[in-house]
Amino acid sequence: MATIFSYSFDEYVDLVKSFHGHVAPGVAIGGFMVDLAFKTLPAGIRFQALCETPKCLPDAVQLLTSCTAGNGRLKIVNFGRYALTLYENQAGKGVRVSVSPKKLEPWSEIQTWFYKRKPKKDQGFDLLMSQVRKAESTLFDVQKVRVAQSFTTTKRRGAFAICPRCHESYPADDGEICLGCKDEATYGTGKA
Amino acid sequence: MATIFSYSFDEYVDLVKSFHGHVAPGVAIGGFMVDLAFKTLPAGIRFQALCETPKCLPDAVQLLTSCTAGNGRLKIVNFGRYALTLYENQAGKGVRVSVSPKKLEPWSEIQTWFYKRKPKKDQGFDLLMSQVRKAESTLFDVQKVRVAQSFTTTKRRGAFAICPRCHESYPADDGEICLGCKDEATYGTGKA
Repeated sequence: MATIFSYSFDEYVDLVKSFHGHVAPGVAIGGFMVDLAFKTLPAGIRFQALCETPKCLPDAVQLLTSCTAGNGRLKIVNFGRYALTLYENQAGKGVRVSVSPKKLEPWSEIQTWFYKRKPKKDQGFDLLMSQVRKAESTLFDVQKVRVAQSFTTTKRRGAFAICPRCHESYPADDGEICLGCKDEATYGTGKA
Repeated sequence: MATIFSYSFDEYVDLVKSFHGHVAPGVAIGGFMVDLAFKTLPAGIRFQALCETPKCLPDAVQLLTSCTAGNGRLKIVNFGRYALTLYENQAGKGVRVSVSPKKLEPWSEIQTWFYKRKPKKDQGFDLLMSQVRKAESTLFDVQKVRVAQSFTTTKRRGAFAICPRCHESYPADDGEICLGCKDEATYGTGKA
């Protein structure tokens, strides 16, 4: 039976729906990826996560591990690759799990979805999900990797200052005004 | 009584602990911020969220709304400001809630924590949390804003290609090799 950590596939899919807002095949596949990466890591170590796409995969990590966007232990880079790494925090050694184009070949509907070969309305959602459930962890390659030091070191913030432009608090190291005020493209009509 | 959406403060703090891994004062304060922004938005609209810091605040958004890092409806920019905006997706009009340095003044322990004036071990955690609970939404400024178009438009991905270097799938628009292979700084020992 397909399981993802302690969950049955159906239980995990319910979690996905509740957190992600809908049953996203990418978060379902991501569940097997996180499960496989975790099983391949040495037991009992504290780890962080690196997702190589912001699409779907970060939510599988957040549902199944204690790495979240807000606690600093989930990093997201936009490489457009459906891959994630779980790694220990000292040397950055870890396990990278990625979707293998070769291993997708037996699964027609997963391929159709993964490569967006049909508009969403023409995809067979039930067939897709049943293939995801059956394929379990067979879709992936696993590699031992070491992430760069920038992903293992947390920069401690120094002193805070009040920005003379927006009058909000910001890290003084960022300069004479805050990065929000330096960036004029965020708020179309001006914030203040 | 302090409430955050349908939760009592204590219930919300339990959620924070479960998702974020520990009771982070920032996620607790963030809960009141999300609650206030949501109440100030027109009722019944579909919205997205923009956090101006990756620290803590994204987890309050993810716990209390259907905007997540993986479903594309939570955007995070690193401006170093403790502020978030909930906005509707057409014109990008929304409500920005930020911590007001002025309004922090009556709350000594929140100030100490917010400006990191003492090492964590010397901060009074219980006093801090009791001040957060009492202060509720009084710490914040609220503004009507309009976010830039880049935050309301979702770029549709085009065709996929197989990267000749890593042999993984990537958006063909990214160029002849994938962005992961272009970035040589991510994996210290090389990925392949």
